[in-house]
Amino acid sequence: MTEKAELRKDLRELIDRICADYPDAYWREVDEARRYPEEFVDALTGTGCLGALVPEEYGGLGLGLGDASVLLEGINANGGNAGPVHAQLYTMGSVLRHGSEEQKRRYLPGIASGELRLQAFGVTEPTAGTDTTSIRTTARRTDDGYVVNGQKVFISRVQHSDLMLLLARTTPREEVARKSEGLSLFLLDLREVKGVELRPLRTMVNHETNEVFLSDVHIPTDALIGEEGKGFRYVLDGMNAERILIAAECIGDGRWFVERASRYATEREVFGRPIGRNQGVQFPIARAHVHVEAADLMRWKAADLFDAGQPCGAEANMAKMLAADASWEAADVALQTHGGYGFTAEYDIERKFRETRLYQVAPISTNLILSYVGEHVLGMPRSF
Amino acid sequence: MTEKAELRKDLRELIDRICADYPDAYWREVDEARRYPEEFVDALTGTGCLGALVPEEYGGLGLGLGDASVLLEGINANGGNAGPVHAQLYTMGSVLRHGSEEQKRRYLPGIASGELRLQAFGVTEPTAGTDTTSIRTTARRTDDGYVVNGQKVFISRVQHSDLMLLLARTTPREEVARKSEGLSLFLLDLREVKGVELRPLRTMVNHETNEVFLSDVHIPTDALIGEEGKGFRYVLDGMNAERILIAAECIGDGRWFVERASRYATEREVFGRPIGRNQGVQFPIARAHVHVEAADLMRWKAADLFDAGQPCGAEANMAKMLAADASWEAADVALQTHGGYGFTAEYDIERKFRETRLYQVAPISTNLILSYVGEHVLGMPRSF
Amino acid sequence: MTEKAELRKDLRELIDRICADYPDAYWREVDEARRYPEEFVDALTGTGCLGALVPEEYGGLGLGLGDASVLLEGINANGGNAGPVHAQLYTMGSVLRHGSEEQKRRYLPGIASGELRLQAFGVTEPTAGTDTTSIRTTARRTDDGYVVNGQKVFISRVQHSDLMLLLARTTPREEVARKSEGLSLFLLDLREVKGVELRPLRTMVNHETNEVFLSDVHIPTDALIGEEGKGFRYVLDGMNAERILIAAECIGDGRWFVERASRYATEREVFGRPIGRNQGVQFPIARAHVHVEAADLMRWKAADLFDAGQPCGAEANMAKMLAADASWEAADVALQTHGGYGFTAEYDIERKFRETRLYQVAPISTNLILSYVGEHVLGMPRSF
Amino acid sequence: MTEKAELRKDLRELIDRICADYPDAYWREVDEARRYPEEFVDALTGTGCLGALVPEEYGGLGLGLGDASVLLEGINANGGNAGPVHAQLYTMGSVLRHGSEEQKRRYLPGIASGELRLQAFGVTEPTAGTDTTSIRTTARRTDDGYVVNGQKVFISRVQHSDLMLLLARTTPREEVARKSEGLSLFLLDLREVKGVELRPLRTMVNHETNEVFLSDVHIPTDALIGEEGKGFRYVLDGMNAERILIAAECIGDGRWFVERASRYATEREVFGRPIGRNQGVQFPIARAHVHVEAADLMRWKAADLFDAGQPCGAEANMAKMLAADASWEAADVALQTHGGYGFTAEYDIERKFRETRLYQVAPISTNLILSYVGEHVLGMPRSF
Repeated sequence: MTEKAELRKDLRELIDRICADYPDAYWREVDEARRYPEEFVDALTGTGCLGALVPEEYGGLGLGLGDASVLLEGINANGGNAGPVHAQLYTMGSVLRHGSEEQKRRYLPGIASGELRLQAFGVTEPTAGTDTTSIRTTARRTDDGYVVNGQKVFISRVQHSDLMLLLARTTPREEVARKSEGLSLFLLDLREVKGVELRPLRTMVNHETNEVFLSDVHIPTDALIGEEGKGFRYVLDGMNAERILIAAECIGDGRWFVERASRYATEREVFGRPIGRNQGVQFPIARAHVHVEAADLMRWKAADLFDAGQPCGAEANMAKMLAADASWEAADVALQTHGGYGFTAEYDIERKFRETRLYQVAPISTNLILSYVGEHVLGMPRSF
Repeated sequence: MTEKAELRKDLRELIDRICADYPDAYWREVDEARRYPEEFVDALTGTGCLGALVPEEYGGLGLGLGDASVLLEGINANGGNAGPVHAQLYTMGSVLRHGSEEQKRRYLPGIASGELRLQAFGVTEPTAGTDTTSIRTTARRTDDGYVVNGQKVFISRVQHSDLMLLLARTTPREEVARKSEGLSLFLLDLREVKGVELRPLRTMVNHETNEVFLSDVHIPTDALIGEEGKGFRYVLDGMNAERILIAAECIGDGRWFVERASRYATEREVFGRPIGRNQGVQFPIARAHVHVEAADLMRWKAADLFDAGQPCGAEANMAKMLAADASWEAADVALQTHGGYGFTAEYDIERKFRETRLYQVAPISTNLILSYVGEHVLGMPRSF
Repeated sequence: MTEKAELRKDLRELIDRICADYPDAYWREVDEARRYPEEFVDALTGTGCLGALVPEEYGGLGLGLGDASVLLEGINANGGNAGPVHAQLYTMGSVLRHGSEEQKRRYLPGIASGELRLQAFGVTEPTAGTDTTSIRTTARRTDDGYVVNGQKVFISRVQHSDLMLLLARTTPREEVARKSEGLSLFLLDLREVKGVELRPLRTMVNHETNEVFLSDVHIPTDALIGEEGKGFRYVLDGMNAERILIAAECIGDGRWFVERASRYATEREVFGRPIGRNQGVQFPIARAHVHVEAADLMRWKAADLFDAGQPCGAEANMAKMLAADASWEAADVALQTHGGYGFTAEYDIERKFRETRLYQVAPISTNLILSYVGEHVLGMPRSF
Repeated sequence: MTEKAELRKDLRELIDRICADYPDAYWREVDEARRYPEEFVDALTGTGCLGALVPEEYGGLGLGLGDASVLLEGINANGGNAGPVHAQLYTMGSVLRHGSEEQKRRYLPGIASGELRLQAFGVTEPTAGTDTTSIRTTARRTDDGYVVNGQKVFISRVQHSDLMLLLARTTPREEVARKSEGLSLFLLDLREVKGVELRPLRTMVNHETNEVFLSDVHIPTDALIGEEGKGFRYVLDGMNAERILIAAECIGDGRWFVERASRYATEREVFGRPIGRNQGVQFPIARAHVHVEAADLMRWKAADLFDAGQPCGAEANMAKMLAADASWEAADVALQTHGGYGFTAEYDIERKFRETRLYQVAPISTNLILSYVGEHVLGMPRSF
C-alpha cells in the first residue's frame, strides 16, 4: 500500500471510530430537534480533522483535498451529516488562498483547532439566485473600514459561527466594465459586528439555514480578504474544491443507502422469502450501487487533478453531478425497499433521503452543471 | 353539460370554497405540529362531504366513487392533504357492503354526518407486510364475543377515530384450506374497548400513524362484520375503490405541483430573464403535466367502470400507478424548479413533496401493481 | 354497445381480416426489399378504407377521425406499417377543407377509391427544418399558373403517388408582415408536371423517402388550393388530425410489442423456467403496457374532441407524445426481452423497433410538443 | 508521461491513422452490403494489432488488456465497428491460457499476424440461452478424436474464420456432479472439418452471425483445449476480459455519438439560431457525455485490475453495464438531435445506433449484470 493509501485508510478508520459514538439515534435526535450537532463537532475538534486542509504551519493537518474528502465521505457513510464539518474545512480556503499573512496568522490556527468556527459563507441573495454577480449587498468604504447593507439567504450555521465570509459589491455595477468586477470578499467577526440579523428558515433538512439582514454593519478595513473588487474570482476559485467535497459526501450517502437497502432486502421476509429475491427489489439496489461506484471514480479523478494543481473544472462538475444523482437514486431505492418503514424516523432512511436531495440543487444545480459541460467542455453555444 | 358533469362541477366548487379558508399556511402549521387538521375536518362535517359515499337512506350523499374522488382531488389540488377525509369516506365501505342492516343503521348515519369518526383501518402487521393473509393477530371466540390479541402497524389516525375496522385471524392457518380463509373483519368501538395501546410513529409525513398493540381486547359478537372467516375477501373488495380514490388524490397533488412550478418558473428571474425560458426548467414541468393528465384519464376510466359495477381491477391498479408516478414526478420537478426555496417550509413544496412520495408505497407498492398487470392482465407467470 | 362502438368494432375486424393475409413475413420482405407494400395497399383499395375520411358525397366512407384512427392502429397492431395508408387518408384533408368544389369533385372520388394516390406532402426543406415558415421553395406567378423552384426533403412515397401537395412561398418574406403569410399550397399532378427530380434517401426505416428537386416546374393556376398566401394556415389546420392518427399508429405498435414480449417471456425458458418469472423481465413489459393504455386514453380524448369540432391542440399533442413515448418504451423492452433473437429479422421485433423510433421525431419532435405544452398550455415563456 | 501512457498514445494514433483511410462512407457501404470489412482488417493485419494480446514469444505484441482496449475503442470512436478485430484479439485467449504448448506454437503466430483467422466462438445455443451449462451439443469420444453433433446460434463471422472455438458436452449432464462439469472446449479447423453447415441470420446489425449446424463433425484429439470436462471454466475465465473490451468499444461509440451530436447541435440552425442553444437539445448531449466519461473510468479500473492479475469481476461487469448504458444513451440522443437526418444512412448515426444497441444484450445482458452485482457484490439472495 502506498503512503497515500495508508494515510487515507487511517483517516477512514479515525472517522469510523469517532462516528461509532454517534450512531443513528444521535443524528435522528439532532434532526428532530433541528439543532447543531454540537457534541459530534466537539469530538472532532480534538482530532485535528477540522483543520484538515489548513497547512501545518498554521496548525492544521495540511492534508490534500482528496484526503480531506475521505473524512466527509466517512461521516455520511456512517449515517451522519457532514454539513458543519464540510463548512469548517472548506470555507477557510478563501482566507488561505487570498488572505494576508497577518489574517492567516490571526485566524487559521483557531479554525484548525476548532476553537474558532468559520462555518458561514454569505454569498447567495434572494434576487440573484445562481447569478452571483448580480448580488445587491453593498460594502461602502468609510474612513476606517466599510459599511455593509443588504440581504443574504440560505446562509447556514451563522448561529454557530464566530466568523462569516461575506461577498458584497464595493463598486457599483455601472462603474465596472464587467459585472464580475467590483465585488469584494470580507471576513466578518460575528462576535463583534453589529447590525446582523437572522431569520432562521425552516427547511426540509436540518441545515440551520437563515436569511441574513445586514443593516449598516461596520467592519474594519482589515476584514477585506485580498484585493478590493476581486471577490468574485476568489469565490470561483474555491468552487471546484467544494464540488469535489460535496461529491464525496454524496458518495458516503450513496454507500449508506445501498448498504441499508441490501441488508433490509436480505433480511426482510414477505410471502415467505426475503424480498431481495425479487428482481424488482434487488435490481434497482444493484443499479444504484453501480452508479455510486462510477461517481466515486470521477470524484477521485477530480480530487487527484486538484491535488496535483491541474485544471479540474470538468471533472469536479461531473463528479458533483454523478455523485448527487447516484446518492439520490440510492436514497429513492432505499426508501422504496423499506416500504412503510422507510418513512418512519427510526429507520433513518427518511432523514437521509431528505438530506441527500439537497445536493441536486446545492451548491450548484444539475442544470448549471449540464450547461457547463455543454458549453465549456463540448463547445456548444451558451443556452441562457 | 350533463347532469353528472354539473354535479361534479358543483362538488369542485364546494371544495374550492371550503379550502379557500384553509390556505397553505394552515396546512403548513398542521404539518409542523404533526397534528390532526381538526378545523378543516370540522368545516367539512357540515357539508355532508364526509358521507359522500354513504347511501342517502343512511343519511349520506349517496354519490358515486367518481364524484367522491372529485372531493379528495380538490383538497390536494388546493394544497391540503385529503388523508383523513379519504379515510372517513372509504373505510365505511366494508360496513356498507358487508355489515348487517342493524350495523348500518347504527353506524352509517353518524359516519355520514361526521359525528362518528371511522378513520382507522387495522390491517397491516409488522411481520406480514403486503402479504395480508399472513397476519398473526387473532380473535378467539368467547361466549359473548371475541378476544383479540396481536399487533398492527401503520394504523393512522386511531387517536382521532371513534371506530376502527380490524382484520384478525379467527381460524388458525393450519385449519383452513387456503390461507386467505379464516380471517374476519371487526368494527371496534374505540370509545369502549380496553386493551388497545398505541405507539405513535414519527414519520416523514404527518399521517399520525401508529403501532397498535392489542392485548386481550374483548369485543362483542356484533362487532363482527359479515360472516366469520370471510374478512380477507371483504378487504379485497374495497381495494379498487381505494386505489381510485388515491389516484384522484395524486392527481390533485400533481396539478398543484405543476401549477406552482410553472408559475414560479414564469415569475422567477435569474440572469435577467424568467427561469422558465430555459428548456432545462420548462420541459420537465411540461412533461410532468402531460403525465398527470394521462393518469387522470385512467382514473376516470377506472372510476366510471367502478360506478357502472363493472370489473375495474386492471384500470384501478393502472390509475394508481400512473397517478402516483405522475405526482412524484411533478413533485420532484417542482422542488428542483424552486431551487433552495423549494426546501423551505414557507413555499410548501417540501411538505407536499414528502406527502406525495408516500403513494409510491401505500396503499400498494408500484412493484405489486406491476406484478398484478404482468400476471393478471398480460398472462405472464407469477414472479414471487 | 353504441352504434359508434359497433362501427369501430367492425372496422377493427375488417382490418384484422385483411391483415391476416399479410403476415409478418410479408412486411419483413417489404422492409428488406425497401419497397412499397403494393399488394397490401391494393387489398385495402377495394374496401373503401383509403377513403375513410373522404365524405360520402365524394365517394368516401365519411368516417370520423377516431374511426379512421382505428384502421391505422389496426394495421400496426397486426405487425404492419400504416405509413402509406396514413398518407392517403390524411393528406387529402387540405383539399377537402380548403379546395374548391371543382377540385374536390375532380380528385376526391379517385383518392377515396384508391385509384388516385395522394400520398406525398411536400413541406419540409433542408434549411428550414421544423421552422416551416422559413422554407425557400418559391412559386412565381406566370400568365397561366406558377413556376416552382426549390428543394424539399423527407418527402415520402413520391414514386408511388399520382399527386403531391406542395407548400411554396408565393410572396417574398420581406414583402409580408408576418413570416407565416405569403405561403401557398398547391396540388401537383405528378403524372403531368416536368422538372421534378427525386433522390431517394436510404434510411433506417423503409419509408421510401426522398429529396425532391423542383426546377422550373410549371403548374397550372387551378393547382392552387384555397387562397394564395394562406398555405401555412392550411397546413397547420391539419396538424392535430395528423398527430392523432400518428398516436393511434403508435398505440398499435405498442400493443404489438407488449403482446410479443409478454408471449415470449411466458414461453421462453432459460435456467429451467420461463424468463417472464423474472421481475427484471416481467416488470418492464408490464410498465410499458400501462403506458400504452394511458396514451390510448389521451388519443381517444383528442379524437373525440376533434370529431366534436372542439379545440384539441393540447390533447392532440399530448396524445402524440405519450403514444410515441409508450411505443418506443415497448419497443425497447420487447427487443431486450428477446435477447439476441430480437435482433434477427425473423422475429420482426427489430423491424418495428426501427420503425416506431421515427415517431420520436416525426411528424413533430418531442421537444416541440413539450414547448407547446409549456408555453401554450401552462403559460410559461417561449423558450426558443 | 509514463511509458504506459506513451504506449497508449501511440496505439491511439496508430488506430486513428489507419481509420483515416476507412471513413464513414466505407463502413456505410460495408453495412449496406452486410459484408465483412475485408480491406480494413487487411490494413490492420500488417500492423500487428490483431495479435495485440498474443505474447511476443508467439509473434504477438504482448500488450496488456488495457492497451488492447485502446485499439478497439479507437476503431469505434472513428466511426467503425471493432467487431471482427475484437473477435480476433479476444477469442485466442482460451488457447493462450489453456492450450498446450504445441497448440500455441501451431496457432498463435498465425493468429497474431492475421494470417489465420480465429474470429468464431461457438458457445451459445438456441435452447440454452444465457444458461450456458445447459447446452446440448455433444462431442463423443472416438478412437482418434471426437464426433460433434448439435446446433449453435449467434455465431458470428464463421464464414471469415479459419478456426472456431467450440464448447460441447463431453460427459452427459446426468453423469456429472455439477452441471458446469463435463463440458469441453475444442479448436476446430474450419478449413478441414466436414459437417458444419451455416444458416446466416439477417439481423439489425451487420454482424454476419449464423446458426451453425454440426452433424457428425469429426475432429482430431488434439483439437481439445486443456483438459476434457473443464471447458465451462475456461469460457468463464475469459469473460472479464471480454466485458472490459466491450466496454472500451462502447466508450468509443459513446464518444463518437457525443462528438457528432454536439457538432451538429452547434452547426445546425433552425428558427435562426443553432439548435444547441436549446437546453432541450444541449442538456441530453451533455448528460450523455458525463455518463460516457464515468463509464470510461470504470473501464480503466477494471482493465488495470485485470492487467495486475487481481480479481476484477465486479469492475468488469460494472464497466460493461455502465459503458453499454452510456453508449446507448448517447446513441439515442444523437439520433434525436439529428431529427430526420439521423435516420438517413448518410449521416451514419442510424448505423451506429443499431450497432451499439446490441451491447445491451451481448455478450451479457444488463439483467445478468445486475444479478451479479446484487448477489455477488452486495450479498443479496439469488433471484432466479
